[in-house]
Amino acid sequence: MGAARTVLKTKVGIVGGGPAGLMLSHLLAGAGIESIVVEKRDYETIRTTHRAGILEHGSVKMLTDGGVSNRVLTDGHRHEGIDLRFGGISHRIDFQDLVGESVWLYPQNEVFVDLAAARARDGGDVRWAVSGTEVLDLTTDTPKIRFTDAEGAGFEIHCDILVGADGSQGVCRRAIPAEQRRENFIEYPFAWFGILTEAPPSAPELVYANSDRGFALISQRNDTIQRMYFQADPTENPDDWTEEQIWEELQLRVDGPDGFELKRGPIFEKTLLKFRSYVCEPLRYGGLFLAGDAGHTVPPTGAKGLNLALADVQVLFEAIESFHATSEKDLLDGYSDQALARVWRAQNFSYWMTSMLHTRADAGPFERKRALGELTGVVASRHGSAYLAEGYTGWPS
Amino acid sequence: MGAARTVLKTKVGIVGGGPAGLMLSHLLAGAGIESIVVEKRDYETIRTTHRAGILEHGSVKMLTDGGVSNRVLTDGHRHEGIDLRFGGISHRIDFQDLVGESVWLYPQNEVFVDLAAARARDGGDVRWAVSGTEVLDLTTDTPKIRFTDAEGAGFEIHCDILVGADGSQGVCRRAIPAEQRRENFIEYPFAWFGILTEAPPSAPELVYANSDRGFALISQRNDTIQRMYFQADPTENPDDWTEEQIWEELQLRVDGPDGFELKRGPIFEKTLLKFRSYVCEPLRYGGLFLAGDAGHTVPPTGAKGLNLALADVQVLFEAIESFHATSEKDLLDGYSDQALARVWRAQNFSYWMTSMLHTRADAGPFERKRALGELTGVVASRHGSAYLAEGYTGWPS
Repeated sequence: MGAARTVLKTKVGIVGGGPAGLMLSHLLAGAGIESIVVEKRDYETIRTTHRAGILEHGSVKMLTDGGVSNRVLTDGHRHEGIDLRFGGISHRIDFQDLVGESVWLYPQNEVFVDLAAARARDGGDVRWAVSGTEVLDLTTDTPKIRFTDAEGAGFEIHCDILVGADGSQGVCRRAIPAEQRRENFIEYPFAWFGILTEAPPSAPELVYANSDRGFALISQRNDTIQRMYFQADPTENPDDWTEEQIWEELQLRVDGPDGFELKRGPIFEKTLLKFRSYVCEPLRYGGLFLAGDAGHTVPPTGAKGLNLALADVQVLFEAIESFHATSEKDLLDGYSDQALARVWRAQNFSYWMTSMLHTRADAGPFERKRALGELTGVVASRHGSAYLAEGYTGWPS
Repeated sequence: MGAARTVLKTKVGIVGGGPAGLMLSHLLAGAGIESIVVEKRDYETIRTTHRAGILEHGSVKMLTDGGVSNRVLTDGHRHEGIDLRFGGISHRIDFQDLVGESVWLYPQNEVFVDLAAARARDGGDVRWAVSGTEVLDLTTDTPKIRFTDAEGAGFEIHCDILVGADGSQGVCRRAIPAEQRRENFIEYPFAWFGILTEAPPSAPELVYANSDRGFALISQRNDTIQRMYFQADPTENPDDWTEEQIWEELQLRVDGPDGFELKRGPIFEKTLLKFRSYVCEPLRYGGLFLAGDAGHTVPPTGAKGLNLALADVQVLFEAIESFHATSEKDLLDGYSDQALARVWRAQNFSYWMTSMLHTRADAGPFERKRALGELTGVVASRHGSAYLAEGYTGWPS
């Protein structure tokens, strides 16, 4: 016998108040479909957790045309290309020229802020800092979410559709019986050593650098704070590195005859980012639908994580809207296959970018030179460059 | 004290009378530069050794514009595309539409016949069926080739430039001291089980098929004889397979909802083709220059072997011609780097086609689905398809 719980009824119960969950709730509200979002973290924690953010044009459109906010256009930075740097020489991939598209540099926590503000503005029901979240009755017509709110009160949400948007460590995927889901994944033999530094940008656009010492990404956060990464061993301890050593290693990975020099500043955050490729199949179990990181994770090299989550949400929203309007389950039944088609394409893109740009410690000389042959071939070919640009800026849905 | 040897003097001594050696000799003759070709096999053996042949447009141009023969145009078959088949569905890569180019199906031994005829017609000096070939004095101004001719007479060729076009098992590469060459290679965990069958073509163009059981290539030789391959274990013994088993295995790899059925006939040749990727660096040692398979081998999936050999020959010919005209060695000194740039690009293309289309026995479910994600992405993207088409039909030099 549990404690008394207040029962809440809604159409769509959403576990996870990150960009995926909030965007879905926002889109549903626009279509007159009510939802409740529960999130275990508090608002401030998510807002202040630095997360990278490269938004595909399709993601930007969801924010702007979808009435969330235009702040991405005013506060974000439109990037019309990236540099692929290898052999000490930078080669620009000109997105606009190649495929007529751009990406926007706009940190993921700003996307979160915009979505949370939009939900608040529209009177959306979002419960922050909940605990003890459980999902149950998933194969019934009324799946449920149990949780305890920030004040310690117990609740049970009864819904028609339950959405797991609670990330790779969330409870929703784990609630699917093991024999009902296939886990596809690979580990990578390296991690990213990441820093945040107070410095101006070192280059106008992002620099993806390949060198004999390994990969480095010279990224940006805004005009005064920069994000940089370099490929490191997964067992590396960031605390073992002095600022001087970090700058030296980063610089070595971009050194070249053009004298490209990183703009240094105080380093105020050091992290080791481990990653893998993961896909859960299917993205559905009964009345539970997984979206974003809850269903799949990609290595960061392709900048696809957030974009893929928003793409899932778009497909799922259309399926729920159709079900709500017609009671027909066709689109809901097709959600997993449709979302996974893009997921596998993005997984391959992320794998390709990762393999091409990183240097494996166990790579022999053939493998090293073949990778340089690939990079050379991609930048020398308009078709190859456009294939990369199309994947980076986002395929049409 | 060796037996008496007749000394022959020439500008360019060429070891190897396959397409690379003969083409170089032909081009040199056209520029008024004399050469002698020595080849250990006899003419009939080379002529009757079945070899596949997909000629890039650039290779065709060398044969036709170079005055060798137009037979490739009359007896060869122009192919304006290939089929990539996966998930049981064929997806055409339309070369003409994508990049405005074609390839020609024209067996390598026919290229050989044309080149040998051209050399004979122009009074070229080609010595077949020689034995005991040695190369010496490679770092002097007069490198030499020693050999015994088909009648048992001993010869020594004194030349200004010595070209090793004697294939992957030849003597020239091995004459370079081990510490003067870097060997870059990878092995693949599979081989090709190949057959020649008396049957009409099963499809108008080549079919590159990926399936859970592995790769298959439904190729052609001419209207009545077909060449087919399927990925097999390198330890497989072709004699263990009955015709019925072979057809069953081939058919399983192309089965699909469209009911595509292979046209069967008597199988009159069974072979197991093992392959690896290999590049010797540099392609030069003193006065010795390596061209074609003597310097590098590619897996057959990209159909690049012969084309790469002819591309080497074009670069080397221009370098020798310049040296002959001006005594300047700049282009000769640049030969290795220039040829290797294309070699590494082709190595990557061959590796990519091989990895994408074959199924590794140790591939986990992620890897299998990622590969399908890649194939899907390539055929769904005009840029991806064009990138493949450009590599297959041949990059501009």
